[in-house]
Amino acid sequence: MGGVARSIGIAGLGLIGGSLARAARRARPDVELVGIDRGEALDRASALGVFDRVGTDLSALAGTDIIVLAAPVRQNAMLLGRLGGAITAPVLVTDTGSTKRAILDAARVLPPHVSFVGGHPLAGAARSGAEAARADLFQGRPWLLTPCDATRAASDVDRIAEFVAALGAAPRVIDGEAHDRLIAFLSHLPQLTASALMHVVGTHVGEPEVGLAGPGLTDTTRLAASPPAIWRDICATNADAIGPALDALIGTLQRLRADLVQGDAIADVFDSAARWRTLVEGAAPSSPPER
Amino acid sequence: MGGVARSIGIAGLGLIGGSLARAARRARPDVELVGIDRGEALDRASALGVFDRVGTDLSALAGTDIIVLAAPVRQNAMLLGRLGGAITAPVLVTDTGSTKRAILDAARVLPPHVSFVGGHPLAGAARSGAEAARADLFQGRPWLLTPCDATRAASDVDRIAEFVAALGAAPRVIDGEAHDRLIAFLSHLPQLTASALMHVVGTHVGEPEVGLAGPGLTDTTRLAASPPAIWRDICATNADAIGPALDALIGTLQRLRADLVQGDAIADVFDSAARWRTLVEGAAPSSPPER
Repeated sequence: MGGVARSIGIAGLGLIGGSLARAARRARPDVELVGIDRGEALDRASALGVFDRVGTDLSALAGTDIIVLAAPVRQNAMLLGRLGGAITAPVLVTDTGSTKRAILDAARVLPPHVSFVGGHPLAGAARSGAEAARADLFQGRPWLLTPCDATRAASDVDRIAEFVAALGAAPRVIDGEAHDRLIAFLSHLPQLTASALMHVVGTHVGEPEVGLAGPGLTDTTRLAASPPAIWRDICATNADAIGPALDALIGTLQRLRADLVQGDAIADVFDSAARWRTLVEGAAPSSPPER
Repeated sequence: MGGVARSIGIAGLGLIGGSLARAARRARPDVELVGIDRGEALDRASALGVFDRVGTDLSALAGTDIIVLAAPVRQNAMLLGRLGGAITAPVLVTDTGSTKRAILDAARVLPPHVSFVGGHPLAGAARSGAEAARADLFQGRPWLLTPCDATRAASDVDRIAEFVAALGAAPRVIDGEAHDRLIAFLSHLPQLTASALMHVVGTHVGEPEVGLAGPGLTDTTRLAASPPAIWRDICATNADAIGPALDALIGTLQRLRADLVQGDAIADVFDSAARWRTLVEGAAPSSPPER
């Protein structure tokens, strides 16, 4: 973390919050790490053995230099709304949510002693929860930053950029609206597609035949293990961008459906897909093997 | 191959035909392997160094004990129609196509000296062509067998079952109609979905932003590198089963689309998907890491 932070608070200790703690501990063994969550999630995060202190309330994060909100999107927005009251000293806050407009809206009413820079690490794994946390989750991955009116100083963006770079990520500043439109296609649409596909295949094929699935179905539905709670928040806070993305996919599937026998649509779509796929493959990592 | 075959002919030398040759050579170093294809595909297959002889015409396969048709589905059907004329000695034939009704139709007019058992290895890889061939492609994977009226003796099914078991696969007999309905969901729908998704994401996001894609999109679209020629044949010969599968997926995507803000459909579909995903994951392998 260099001079960026001696103490880091993390609210929400799932895969992202837990990985953030592990990555921070690895980058800077002497940094103080404070985490908050509730119930089982808190127990599982404590079991990682990387936190100096854990608690259940925002006030436990008082005295930290940087606070990262790593809960589901709407919970982050709620926590941000309460943060100015719970912590009275100046503090720099960021988040890790997959949509940015909702949290940036919540940031509009922050008191002056709270500075906020939105954040979104483009990283993930098939498994959720702190028990799946990995110190290298952000290694080489983009981490999008969205400054806003509640960003009190330009240097605050630099501090968050330096912070995420220390975790191995590549920071990149982007407008909040542009972020949400982009991520609707790059992340939200693939997730909804994978879950819809797994649901349809499972319910139509049933047991035990679904066990005959080959690597094609396995790869295509890897995301389908994702937890609903996170995705309700994402979809609710990005519905106007996800809707048109779903429409575009539905339109393409209908085009293929109408031309199964002749196959010209198949040729068009497959050729286009293969070209785009080459660009994706050169840039992005595959998931590590499971188990 | 044990006593099943001293000489194997393979027509169509792409990923499946090439892998079949490599697996057969590994299982039985002294088996004779004869391959036929045309142009570049033949050159690439020859470069594998596993074939004793290669040629461009069915007649090159005369004298082999088992002939495997491993070209695209409609080409296999065409080859099967010509096979009885090109080869006059008794011969046992199977295929590796992803749909079975079209080839079983073609088998109805076979002369008595040709015995046919349909086959379909549930294996694949993101890359196509003989250069991607792997001796272990079928290891532990199901290989579905569809006997028919042109299966001249029950022992012919046993011979093909023994043959694919020697390649590492797990043979399993299934009715051709049932096969095509099952595989529409387990394989054809995931492929069409992955290609449609990659096409939509690429064309809407564009370069260079598509390079920001994380492992989620990478996994979900791994199949999108598949070649159109193979899939035109598959879709044309299984349109009546793939159509309803596409309809089911489109219906689920429309249900999610209509409920993005409230999120009850998301909760339902994600819960169902996560349950089915657990069953798939226990049974099927992931793709090996690329490059």
